[in-house]
Amino acid sequence: MPKQHSIKFLPSGRKIDVAHETSVLDAALQVGIELESICGARQTCGKCIVTTTVDTSLGQDTPSNTSHITEPDDDERDCLNKYNLSPEAYRLGCAAHIIGDLVVTVPESSLSRKQVVRKTAGAITVDTQPMVRLIFVEVAPPKLGSRSDWSRLQTAIQEQWGIDNLTIAPPVLKQLQATLREGNESVTVTLWGESKVIRVEAGYVESLYGLAVDIGSTTLAAYLVELRTGNVLETATMMNPQVRYGEDIVSRISYASEKNGLRHLHRSIINALNDLFESVAESANIQSDEITDVVLVGNSVMHHIVLGIDPSELGHIPFVLAIDDAVDQPASQLGLKKLHAGAQVHILPCIASYVGADNVAVLLAEHHQFQDDILLIADIGTNAEILMGQKSRILSTSSPTGPAFEGAQIQHGQRAAIGAIERIRLDTHGLRYKVIGDERWSNELSSGESLQPTGICGSGIIEAIACLFTSGLITENGKFDRNTCQTHPNMRAVKNSFELVLASADDSAIPNDIVITQHDIRAIQLAKAAFYSSVRILMDELGVTQIDRIRLAGAFGSYIDPLYAMQIGLIPDCDLNEVISVGNAAGDGALIALINRNERQYIQQLVREVTYIETAAEPEFQDYFVEALIFPHGSDTFVHLASGENHD
Amino acid sequence: MPKQHSIKFLPSGRKIDVAHETSVLDAALQVGIELESICGARQTCGKCIVTTTVDTSLGQDTPSNTSHITEPDDDERDCLNKYNLSPEAYRLGCAAHIIGDLVVTVPESSLSRKQVVRKTAGAITVDTQPMVRLIFVEVAPPKLGSRSDWSRLQTAIQEQWGIDNLTIAPPVLKQLQATLREGNESVTVTLWGESKVIRVEAGYVESLYGLAVDIGSTTLAAYLVELRTGNVLETATMMNPQVRYGEDIVSRISYASEKNGLRHLHRSIINALNDLFESVAESANIQSDEITDVVLVGNSVMHHIVLGIDPSELGHIPFVLAIDDAVDQPASQLGLKKLHAGAQVHILPCIASYVGADNVAVLLAEHHQFQDDILLIADIGTNAEILMGQKSRILSTSSPTGPAFEGAQIQHGQRAAIGAIERIRLDTHGLRYKVIGDERWSNELSSGESLQPTGICGSGIIEAIACLFTSGLITENGKFDRNTCQTHPNMRAVKNSFELVLASADDSAIPNDIVITQHDIRAIQLAKAAFYSSVRILMDELGVTQIDRIRLAGAFGSYIDPLYAMQIGLIPDCDLNEVISVGNAAGDGALIALINRNERQYIQQLVREVTYIETAAEPEFQDYFVEALIFPHGSDTFVHLASGENHD
Repeated sequence: MPKQHSIKFLPSGRKIDVAHETSVLDAALQVGIELESICGARQTCGKCIVTTTVDTSLGQDTPSNTSHITEPDDDERDCLNKYNLSPEAYRLGCAAHIIGDLVVTVPESSLSRKQVVRKTAGAITVDTQPMVRLIFVEVAPPKLGSRSDWSRLQTAIQEQWGIDNLTIAPPVLKQLQATLREGNESVTVTLWGESKVIRVEAGYVESLYGLAVDIGSTTLAAYLVELRTGNVLETATMMNPQVRYGEDIVSRISYASEKNGLRHLHRSIINALNDLFESVAESANIQSDEITDVVLVGNSVMHHIVLGIDPSELGHIPFVLAIDDAVDQPASQLGLKKLHAGAQVHILPCIASYVGADNVAVLLAEHHQFQDDILLIADIGTNAEILMGQKSRILSTSSPTGPAFEGAQIQHGQRAAIGAIERIRLDTHGLRYKVIGDERWSNELSSGESLQPTGICGSGIIEAIACLFTSGLITENGKFDRNTCQTHPNMRAVKNSFELVLASADDSAIPNDIVITQHDIRAIQLAKAAFYSSVRILMDELGVTQIDRIRLAGAFGSYIDPLYAMQIGLIPDCDLNEVISVGNAAGDGALIALINRNERQYIQQLVREVTYIETAAEPEFQDYFVEALIFPHGSDTFVHLASGENHD
Repeated sequence: MPKQHSIKFLPSGRKIDVAHETSVLDAALQVGIELESICGARQTCGKCIVTTTVDTSLGQDTPSNTSHITEPDDDERDCLNKYNLSPEAYRLGCAAHIIGDLVVTVPESSLSRKQVVRKTAGAITVDTQPMVRLIFVEVAPPKLGSRSDWSRLQTAIQEQWGIDNLTIAPPVLKQLQATLREGNESVTVTLWGESKVIRVEAGYVESLYGLAVDIGSTTLAAYLVELRTGNVLETATMMNPQVRYGEDIVSRISYASEKNGLRHLHRSIINALNDLFESVAESANIQSDEITDVVLVGNSVMHHIVLGIDPSELGHIPFVLAIDDAVDQPASQLGLKKLHAGAQVHILPCIASYVGADNVAVLLAEHHQFQDDILLIADIGTNAEILMGQKSRILSTSSPTGPAFEGAQIQHGQRAAIGAIERIRLDTHGLRYKVIGDERWSNELSSGESLQPTGICGSGIIEAIACLFTSGLITENGKFDRNTCQTHPNMRAVKNSFELVLASADDSAIPNDIVITQHDIRAIQLAKAAFYSSVRILMDELGVTQIDRIRLAGAFGSYIDPLYAMQIGLIPDCDLNEVISVGNAAGDGALIALINRNERQYIQQLVREVTYIETAAEPEFQDYFVEALIFPHGSDTFVHLASGENHD
């Protein structure tokens, strides 16, 4: 039997017996530990660094005084020196060969699948295994009668990396010869999906960047990621310039069907993305053409417009998508130019007409939250996208809440931004509020000071209405109660009704008093009834009467206080400790898809296992809707509110 | 055992036993006879027409008086009526079900793989099995909660045609919803390679067109083909507008390396192709956007320029191609717009730097000519591309003949066009010639008439030199023989040499005498020596001393008289009956690749089995070259020439 040595890898603890003079890199691969290597074991990239210690207790060898690992040669010393590492302490896995029993410690940084923790509730751990990766290749120099450069590059990749059946992006093919000559036939190739050459750069190169992009109707957000490590380097946001064609998606759809409307919408979003890509690259001090992979998410209408598809059919019954599968396309085909010419775009799939790629991204970020109990994940915006269920069965729906929660249709409503009233209390201590951008309550100011609010955002409206109800100023039907209002110091009579005066014109940043009107209350009632009815239909479908956990995604979910939301009957009863905001889960999902290619595969499969329910078309929807217009009779949860306690 | 019936198909004679009530279409498919069907057995397309006769001698059934085939229903009668066919005589294979022993006659027109004969020497038979085909699909109408249109189309194709894993061309996806609605959810889909949807048209459509295009340095030729039948409907040619950047490929290469040079060259060829496509479609009375598949061939330089790849490296040692594999691309990516938006382009592979896709097309058209004896196929132009060998081993080379055979570098040389002297005789009957476009010899004219030649084309020059040699006016070294020339009536002394006066200025269409000079003879000597030396190297490589058959491809091959070509030592000795011009074999090869997708596969494989020899780099080349400059000592073949016999 040929000579064998026992190797133990730390921190995993995996063990393997290998033949004499096996390289540490090969031994690691044999036991399933993927040491990173760009240079292909040429002792130049310095990615496969390990430390080794002799441990004769492993017991394979007879103890001896000879070394258990080959001595570093000049090439290895040069490479280690380049990274300021001592050859006595560190070794290159590709250069060090095993000649005795050994314990090998692999630092996290030397693993090709680094683990990245995404900052969301419950912290998601993702292996860095992007769709693109770098390989260094030495191609046979051209000579008379040689096969083509592309052919020789394929041969070199096959021989040096064992990868077959490659295609090459046309723009990359155009530059191939010049790049090979520039690099003296040595190049770093960027592979997409182990199947397509999307970049070739002269010599040895380490740059590998990607973008996760969330295309909101209002805001575009781009996360620039160093794909070798999975680290987010920069985040940039900008207004969606389509806002000029209408604030909400309904007006976008209607503009799209005008002459050249779709073309304008498509161009405006593509131009904006180009600008955004350039600016995020500049912030990170890289060239935007170093970016080779992009993941896009967005609601169905944005999804269609980015692809240049007329979204008109999303504007009328039966609201059918042109495509709901995930899309992989060369970025240049979409007109995305501020990227590498061979860059690829991946667009997450859609679940249904109004459950788009953005909600699929939420599902990707949060799917591990589905366990055996009943989970509700809601992303409340102009529409509310709802996921509900258990590990074994996930339901999805979209609820037509309208934009009231975003401040539209509310007299002094506004988006959650600096100056917006976001918290309101009205109890035995009187009325007070907080605005975004200031830590103080309005009753904590010195004389003559004011918070200068500009309006009320969604969370403020919800708290105001909750307070009005618990104070008995509105009835369970949502109507101002004449008896109570007439005598209340913060209420003012107008026409046949009343209004709650939050801030006088003197205290506000606008020329008017900031008020909550009867009409505002009606708008919120309609919105919350739509949402709650959809939730009820899904609960019926699951055959449950209780939600165990609630996760609120998106901006609205980050701002609202679950207690008040529950109190006005927006979200169903649930243990308040189990109502958690998960922040921009759509962005997280896009990042996960960018960082790990397997997650792209997984979500495509999972999406087709989700059951979409057109809740608004269910016969019970109308009944539930009418019921849900009513404000709930205070459950035990809310008794302390009515008694005037604070919940900050 | 369930009831079975014996079916015999004519003209193939194939037999099969099928279950009671099997359709004739299914029975045919089971026995490997592919009846055409676009409508998917909906009794509407009328493609699967057959005739049936009862033949009880088949012996499966007990003889009876009952019918052996189901009666035609109203749908079938309607369809047959539409095509003026009597239901008594004809049946739809998809509608007629077998209920007794039967003989089914399948006309050629009902086969999906029709056989087309291509007009080349030896007539090539090709099955019509193009890369694209039509299928009619009925898609589930959209309703609330439906999956996307693309998803439902895929499902319909899977269910109705059994085809899976399709992709869709982005421009087609953009129009998909509108097309489905227009067709009331019934559409005709054009599939490329059974894997990609490249066109969707409302309702039932039969149009299926493709183009085979030969991109010559001088001339572009396009063949418009009806792909369901394989018939060539129209042919159109136009000048390659790149001629303005230089007549030959060397000047194109050099222009490409100038600033914006490549872009100009690329645009000029793409614009020209767009014009050509439009004009050939117009001639055939179809819309150019009905064309969905294009096969391109051309020499390596044209190949690279069409792909937008800088051909500079083809201009200097070691002459390496950027890509030599076959290319499949959406036509729109190359800028080819006068086609359907989803149209695909296939470019044949290249063998070597100067053995491009055009020569591969020649190989595709002629490969069946390679048998057990030694075959030489030559396409002589500015370069000569040579294929030589047997079925078991094919060699290839490119010989740097230069453009002399095309009339360049010859004082009065010109391309083969109206007015060019193409035939010359000089013997005991005196000097006479013929020009292209006139049937008469110059000595057959009435007094005062003349043929008004404009110059001499390649075949004329070769015949002139052959005559000069056989008349003893030039020595075997190619030098004018002072003694003979001084006294010859058609020779004129100039400076230190002589020239052959073919036509006086009075008889010609130009202001000068048309002559053959010593310099002209030298140019032809160099060209033929280059060609012959390459042939010798290949013969050495094969270990043979004799060529059994010669096929001359291309325009030059069509014009030259093999006897004279052999006589000056241009082509090697061979039985004259076995020297055959095969016309535009490159165009034929492009057509074959267009009509049959398997031939595309086959040639990609065959090309890699061809051994390319860089003949000019072989050590023996120089010796052979110097030897081949000499005019050959008349072999037996030429004795009659020297004796003054005519060979017309």
